[in-house]
Amino acid sequence: MEKPSLAIIGVGLIGGSFAKALRVARVVERIVGYDSNNQSLEHAKQLGVIDEAVSIEQAAQSDIVVVAVPVRALPSVFSAIAPHLRDAALLMDVGSTKRDALAAASCLGSKAAQFVPAHPIAGRETSGIASSDAMLFNDRFTILTPSEHSAVTAIDRATRVWNAAGAKVVQMTAAEHDEVFAAVSHLPHMLAFALVTEFAERENANELFRFAASGFRDFTRIAASSPEMWRDIALNNRTALLEQMRLYRAALDRWIDCVDRSDSETLAQWMSVSREWRERWGRGEFN
Amino acid sequence: MEKPSLAIIGVGLIGGSFAKALRVARVVERIVGYDSNNQSLEHAKQLGVIDEAVSIEQAAQSDIVVVAVPVRALPSVFSAIAPHLRDAALLMDVGSTKRDALAAASCLGSKAAQFVPAHPIAGRETSGIASSDAMLFNDRFTILTPSEHSAVTAIDRATRVWNAAGAKVVQMTAAEHDEVFAAVSHLPHMLAFALVTEFAERENANELFRFAASGFRDFTRIAASSPEMWRDIALNNRTALLEQMRLYRAALDRWIDCVDRSDSETLAQWMSVSREWRERWGRGEFN
Repeated sequence: MEKPSLAIIGVGLIGGSFAKALRVARVVERIVGYDSNNQSLEHAKQLGVIDEAVSIEQAAQSDIVVVAVPVRALPSVFSAIAPHLRDAALLMDVGSTKRDALAAASCLGSKAAQFVPAHPIAGRETSGIASSDAMLFNDRFTILTPSEHSAVTAIDRATRVWNAAGAKVVQMTAAEHDEVFAAVSHLPHMLAFALVTEFAERENANELFRFAASGFRDFTRIAASSPEMWRDIALNNRTALLEQMRLYRAALDRWIDCVDRSDSETLAQWMSVSREWRERWGRGEFN
Repeated sequence: MEKPSLAIIGVGLIGGSFAKALRVARVVERIVGYDSNNQSLEHAKQLGVIDEAVSIEQAAQSDIVVVAVPVRALPSVFSAIAPHLRDAALLMDVGSTKRDALAAASCLGSKAAQFVPAHPIAGRETSGIASSDAMLFNDRFTILTPSEHSAVTAIDRATRVWNAAGAKVVQMTAAEHDEVFAAVSHLPHMLAFALVTEFAERENANELFRFAASGFRDFTRIAASSPEMWRDIALNNRTALLEQMRLYRAALDRWIDCVDRSDSETLAQWMSVSREWRERWGRGEFN
């Protein structure tokens, strides 16, 4: 049996890493790529990540089509590729928010059965094709959030290709996904961004940054993340994120009140709970 | 001229590292140690970090006396050593909060001139003498917060010994110190503790921790810090910390409002400010 062809629409960190991973796993034959940025596309070709740079219409005719563009670009990309998708093709996105990926897929019509939204839980501080890595997804979760329209065969195939890329595949609904990641990913990003901007606005900002040490470094690493990407995530997942931000604010109020009352016992108890769970997490107990 | 003797009262990570650093720098001759925990003290002797385990009264008679105990133990330690301190001795603590270190020094009476509060900005996730490291302070700041009673000769000597340990020495008032570190250190710890406990209390805590990834890892590393130490820091620096927590809550409210209004432009602008400052910090521009 001939190996399937793969198209990467959007040749950045995630798209490029997926292409590399599937090439290493030898589960695809020919890999084509499309990107609205010609330079990125040419670069992907030069690096050998893709075999050929093609038009978006040509890319849409591959056996496996992965759309790795910013979530706000999904509707226009889906509209462009829908007429050209083959009946047996598998279509996936790789965005960080999934309800909006499903919404963007409404233009797919009868081909919605072939669409399986995917979110690989993997990232880098660096972006772009030059940072792409065949091992990026290795031993990481990839969340699939099929809709009620998704065909079982498409879900199975998506599971197999992500497994081939090294990922542990988990299924949940788009709503559950967006709630979970609003909490564990989007909220910490907002909290770190908020801390750094709050300090940056102070009169003694230079002094604060001067004496900030290793605790600050780790806490705020994610505060240097892409503004465009995180603005989109925040607004695309606005409802779930707002709920998480408000829950956190309520928790913060309890901590403020506890410090205000000098409630030594409660404070130590909460910190012990925190340490216990964080250490259990660090030992991989929740994997 | 004979090299001075050094006493470490409290042979943990910081005390042990300071002893090692000064031994490597060859600025002290004999190093003695005292700890209320006999096992720790014996361990420090076995490891060769101290030359001899002595009583607290004997330790107090060294040329340089470093008190590296939890801040809440400072008053009793200072009371115990005050009668035995030599006139020319230098006395330092190494705690994370400095107004309370100065307050604890009130029992020193006329010997208060010999006391120079010090805060080496260095730490490890691990604690105890076994983690001690001669390089722990290398190229890190040590903040000295002398009072109006501190003798210039004592401040100069403290500066020299911390420089010998590899540290960059900066002076500020205890009040300024406590405000700056409430912001850049104590606040992020509270925020990380609050996030982890908030998740731990949820019904779906296991799911949240299961899917928490690298952003969560870095953001919450400090949430596994010592509950006893951080409870003390929070309460010892309560006023300054409360102010920082309230400033942060106000910032969080602005972020919540901005997301709520779907104010894409402001969100992206704030995130850009955050990224810019965090990247400048990462490049060492504030050192």
